[in-house]
Amino acid sequence: MSEVDANAAAVFTRNQFPGAPVVLGRETIRGGVLRVIVANSKYSNVATGVEGLAFARRMAAAAAKELGTDAARVLVSSTGVIGVRLPIETIEAGLVGMSRELVADPLVGADGIMTTDTYAKALSASVPGTGATITWVAKGSGMIEPNMATMLVYIFTDAAVDAPSLDRALRDAVHLSFNMLSVDTDTSTSDTCAILANGLAGAVDAIAFAETLTAGCIRMTEMLARDGEGAEHLIRAIVRGAAREDDARRVAKSLVNSPLVKTMVHGADPNVGRLLMAVGKCFDVRLDPSGTDASINGHPVVRGGRRLDFDDAVVRATLAAEQVNLEVSLGVGTASATAYGCDLTKGYIEENAAYYSS
Amino acid sequence: MSEVDANAAAVFTRNQFPGAPVVLGRETIRGGVLRVIVANSKYSNVATGVEGLAFARRMAAAAAKELGTDAARVLVSSTGVIGVRLPIETIEAGLVGMSRELVADPLVGADGIMTTDTYAKALSASVPGTGATITWVAKGSGMIEPNMATMLVYIFTDAAVDAPSLDRALRDAVHLSFNMLSVDTDTSTSDTCAILANGLAGAVDAIAFAETLTAGCIRMTEMLARDGEGAEHLIRAIVRGAAREDDARRVAKSLVNSPLVKTMVHGADPNVGRLLMAVGKCFDVRLDPSGTDASINGHPVVRGGRRLDFDDAVVRATLAAEQVNLEVSLGVGTASATAYGCDLTKGYIEENAAYYSS
Repeated sequence: MSEVDANAAAVFTRNQFPGAPVVLGRETIRGGVLRVIVANSKYSNVATGVEGLAFARRMAAAAAKELGTDAARVLVSSTGVIGVRLPIETIEAGLVGMSRELVADPLVGADGIMTTDTYAKALSASVPGTGATITWVAKGSGMIEPNMATMLVYIFTDAAVDAPSLDRALRDAVHLSFNMLSVDTDTSTSDTCAILANGLAGAVDAIAFAETLTAGCIRMTEMLARDGEGAEHLIRAIVRGAAREDDARRVAKSLVNSPLVKTMVHGADPNVGRLLMAVGKCFDVRLDPSGTDASINGHPVVRGGRRLDFDDAVVRATLAAEQVNLEVSLGVGTASATAYGCDLTKGYIEENAAYYSS
Repeated sequence: MSEVDANAAAVFTRNQFPGAPVVLGRETIRGGVLRVIVANSKYSNVATGVEGLAFARRMAAAAAKELGTDAARVLVSSTGVIGVRLPIETIEAGLVGMSRELVADPLVGADGIMTTDTYAKALSASVPGTGATITWVAKGSGMIEPNMATMLVYIFTDAAVDAPSLDRALRDAVHLSFNMLSVDTDTSTSDTCAILANGLAGAVDAIAFAETLTAGCIRMTEMLARDGEGAEHLIRAIVRGAAREDDARRVAKSLVNSPLVKTMVHGADPNVGRLLMAVGKCFDVRLDPSGTDASINGHPVVRGGRRLDFDDAVVRATLAAEQVNLEVSLGVGTASATAYGCDLTKGYIEENAAYYSS
């Protein structure tokens, strides 16, 4: 909750079966002003029909009543199992008296929205040259291709930024961060990323604000990737030398999404031909097979489309690091992109083969 | 090897880093005539540069010499680790005398090309109303999105079919079968599907031939899916009610490729909202969220975009069957498609985290 009304912007999942809170959130954010975010876990309120939408509205109304604002200034999120009735009566009862329990520590909020996360995720950064701060509170896994654990990211700042500028800055930051995150190629029906700027710290330099926002979103993206379900490694796929940015983004995504690349990192087994495979399966991307280079944490492993005769022990050791940078140059241009992902482990299978009943 | 020269057609991987045998194979198949197929496992001869292509040619020449034909009538395949030098001297030495070891049993050939397959795969079918037979010999996992184990499918018939008709019949059959197979979304650099028709049984009815060819390719696709690395279930995703066939194909592929759908089948845990998630993440497919139905092995689980209040024990039991049919109707048209896949298990992680060193 912000002490005063905040200018606000938000982006939501592109899934064609969005949850009721996303349907309501798209309507709410049109006003460009938020005061409160209320979120529940365990039930996602997706595939619940008109009753689900009515329940999301009741959740906003209950939070607004308790916190002394209007339901139109409350953003609702739900994460959990799809298709199960939201226990709205329990939520309404639980919200009564909550205004007395609000605390300033963002980690408390982050802890409250965890599902399969292994730790609470919050970040704060000052906007250079100003007295303003940006704070991120997040859970879950992805944005365009997230795990069903659902990514929820809430960003709070006391900088004074108008709603249209906030919307533009958020979309630019998300383009380079959460939209380049993939834990498992699946796209949640509930993903939400919202920013609130209440202006209490006054005006800020637009460029400094945008740069701080983007840097923090990228850092949070790395935290979400590293904590993907079952993950033991953060994978950064850095693609350079592409003809267009969109090509670089597609190849980078292909690398972090490939089960064979993910298991290669998991096993620290330098079967580096899999990098070429994951690049080459982007059928429509322009590349030069005989001009393609690749390296792992700075160690060259492919040059001119051919596997190099590298020191197996060295590459094996670097693949075992917690952070693995896979760098590929396509050799046809100057565009680049970075995607963020994680390895594929037995832990992922365990968590998702019995998510519903657990 | 065919007793006489055979009209032939083939399709190959679309990966932009095709192996040397695929580069050579595209050249060879232009002649429309084959006599011999020679394949090795363990080394894929991919990302091996000009030397690799020279080695593929030497492999064809060695087989041609031993078997008394021309190298231009020999199709070469290699499957295994990418980027490692093919031990061509060993292969050339091994081919000497092989003409005396040829046997008629297709299972012997299927056994010889296995890598991570758990059993040898061959099929035979008569073309109704004719004396002709079609025999399939295959290994591996996929076609457009196959496991790096690589799919190799060789189809042999004594029907008399000219090369252009054979090419058309093969492409039509592959469209409905191997191109709808996905084990793990990854696309091998070596996939090959070839058909040889040597005409010894005389002319056949074109429609009967095409129908038999397609039915066998679908059956082989199911065998390859069921034997995907680590797989314990065959998954068929049957999509109906789409506006266009391409939409139906994309949704069906999305279902068999979704890690969360695959782990749901693996765990026999009816978290059926994941079906809607996997449909809804096809952002550009036209569908009616409130007109979408889904069922599992004939048991309705979603109607009009809402999860039904089904009998959990019944759906849990049917999900545990070896073959799981996921049926989705998009409610906007009459087009349909079926995709073939498998569940995602710890066995997949085990096989692929240490493929190279094993």
